[in-house]
Amino acid sequence: MEAEFLAWLRGRLPAVKPPIDIGVGDDAAVIACAADSRIVVTTDMLSDGVDFRLGEADPRRIGRKALAVNLSDLAAMAAQPIATFVSLLLPRSGGTALARELYEGLLPLAEEFLAPVVGGDTNAWDGPLAISVTALGRAGPHGVFLRSGARPGDAILVTGEFGGSILAHQFDFTPRVREAMWLAEHTKVHAAMDVSDGLALDLSRLCAESGCGAELDLGRIPISTDAQRLVPIEHLSSSPLQHALNDGEDFELLLAIDAADAARLVAEQPLEPVYGVRLTQIGRFVAEHGLWAVDAAGKRSPLEQGGFQHRFD
Amino acid sequence: MEAEFLAWLRGRLPAVKPPIDIGVGDDAAVIACAADSRIVVTTDMLSDGVDFRLGEADPRRIGRKALAVNLSDLAAMAAQPIATFVSLLLPRSGGTALARELYEGLLPLAEEFLAPVVGGDTNAWDGPLAISVTALGRAGPHGVFLRSGARPGDAILVTGEFGGSILAHQFDFTPRVREAMWLAEHTKVHAAMDVSDGLALDLSRLCAESGCGAELDLGRIPISTDAQRLVPIEHLSSSPLQHALNDGEDFELLLAIDAADAARLVAEQPLEPVYGVRLTQIGRFVAEHGLWAVDAAGKRSPLEQGGFQHRFD
Repeated sequence: MEAEFLAWLRGRLPAVKPPIDIGVGDDAAVIACAADSRIVVTTDMLSDGVDFRLGEADPRRIGRKALAVNLSDLAAMAAQPIATFVSLLLPRSGGTALARELYEGLLPLAEEFLAPVVGGDTNAWDGPLAISVTALGRAGPHGVFLRSGARPGDAILVTGEFGGSILAHQFDFTPRVREAMWLAEHTKVHAAMDVSDGLALDLSRLCAESGCGAELDLGRIPISTDAQRLVPIEHLSSSPLQHALNDGEDFELLLAIDAADAARLVAEQPLEPVYGVRLTQIGRFVAEHGLWAVDAAGKRSPLEQGGFQHRFD
Repeated sequence: MEAEFLAWLRGRLPAVKPPIDIGVGDDAAVIACAADSRIVVTTDMLSDGVDFRLGEADPRRIGRKALAVNLSDLAAMAAQPIATFVSLLLPRSGGTALARELYEGLLPLAEEFLAPVVGGDTNAWDGPLAISVTALGRAGPHGVFLRSGARPGDAILVTGEFGGSILAHQFDFTPRVREAMWLAEHTKVHAAMDVSDGLALDLSRLCAESGCGAELDLGRIPISTDAQRLVPIEHLSSSPLQHALNDGEDFELLLAIDAADAARLVAEQPLEPVYGVRLTQIGRFVAEHGLWAVDAAGKRSPLEQGGFQHRFD
């Protein structure tokens, strides 16, 4: 299981020391490259059959997603993208045509987010398609967001809506780079991450890094219309709320912000007129470890864990 | 074919502009992150069946190689490693054990070259093993080596010996990071690259970027003892010299240096007492485009092209 392997790996890695400020464990690493300049670096590898199915999805959307998930990691740290590196492992047959389509989906997003492709590695092999992207960003003057730093009493804020990403959002989402930069400039964000593996699971990870727990107001979770559409399509027992809590690939921001600041943000909705994105308070961080659900009647109970975890033996 | 695809891709990429100093086309990209600080970034993806054969090679040697080829690219630019990122695509069965062995080979090299692993992505899938490594380095005070800049009249200098890497060197080579840093500090290097796809092919690439040609003194090519051993093993027609010119995976430095400076370096062999590495002059850059061979009798003829090129349709 990935969590166990990562624990083993963390034990083998040397202690983080300058010029490394943040190593393995957050959404990206942070490297000091001058007294007043820090580089944020993240890397994600997407592969056929795990993150997409070649043949079911347009390669342009796959290429776009491979870059977008990395930009989302930079957003999680409030870093401004500056450059990206794209490595492709292509099936031998039709590899060149496929590579062009991947880039045709990826390059417009790179341009939109000022994240030019400046390097990479292109190879063919006998295996399925795999795409490895590394993105570099620059930490802003207000510093980076980390997963640690949430305090009991902080509001849990999220951008956008959750659930049902399998219908389209997993490919078409907008990395919350601009929203994160705005928040870094205008608000004191205590902790943040992007939600890639499901709201409940990722919230539990942020709590673990911050040494606290969280209460979710189930009635306040912003559920996407796709999560609501999924129920009749799938004929499964998952409710729209369960989709919103557990589906993954939402790529929204999860934020810990002082309760008073959060109330003001939710009242003013400053991101809506510019970026079309709403902020919602979905609960609060608490001292007691664990995730708790508070229903409409105020009843508090432990929240079941779902979400996506990479598994291997 | 990779060359054609790269030409297409280069045409689609935006012009390089600040903070990017060097984009696609050299051994690594160069990014300005402060007035006096530049980051060098390279990424290489290795895969089962192309760069190694899992089952024939110890996974520790494969892990080491995945990092070493990236450090060699930093050496090609005379950059001091500062951090590395390792992404793994693991076969589902036995993935954790394999990942541990890969890291057991990789981590000692990371420690030796002060290139700690500070991030990455670990996934399992139904395909073969693939490893993507990104390495970051810091440009030294004397700047970076580029492939462009060789001038007619410059000596062609190389570190070490060539050919026969298939026997062991492809896994056990030492990235020439320290040698490159020494040369950057003590010599004016006009152009450089690391030899990964064969001496002749990579020399032709350096010539193309520098807008010149080169004459090789065939009698002076340092041929490794492994290249000499290969001939009876393989029962093929390749001579040891042909192995040295075309085999690839030597990961030695190829340098363009002013003729007088080069003569002094060859006479003094400053790298030998410290790093155990000899410098050899194997020819000279010329104004006329193309690669030329000069035999022991002084006869000049066009050099046949060999070397390794990634192919896909």
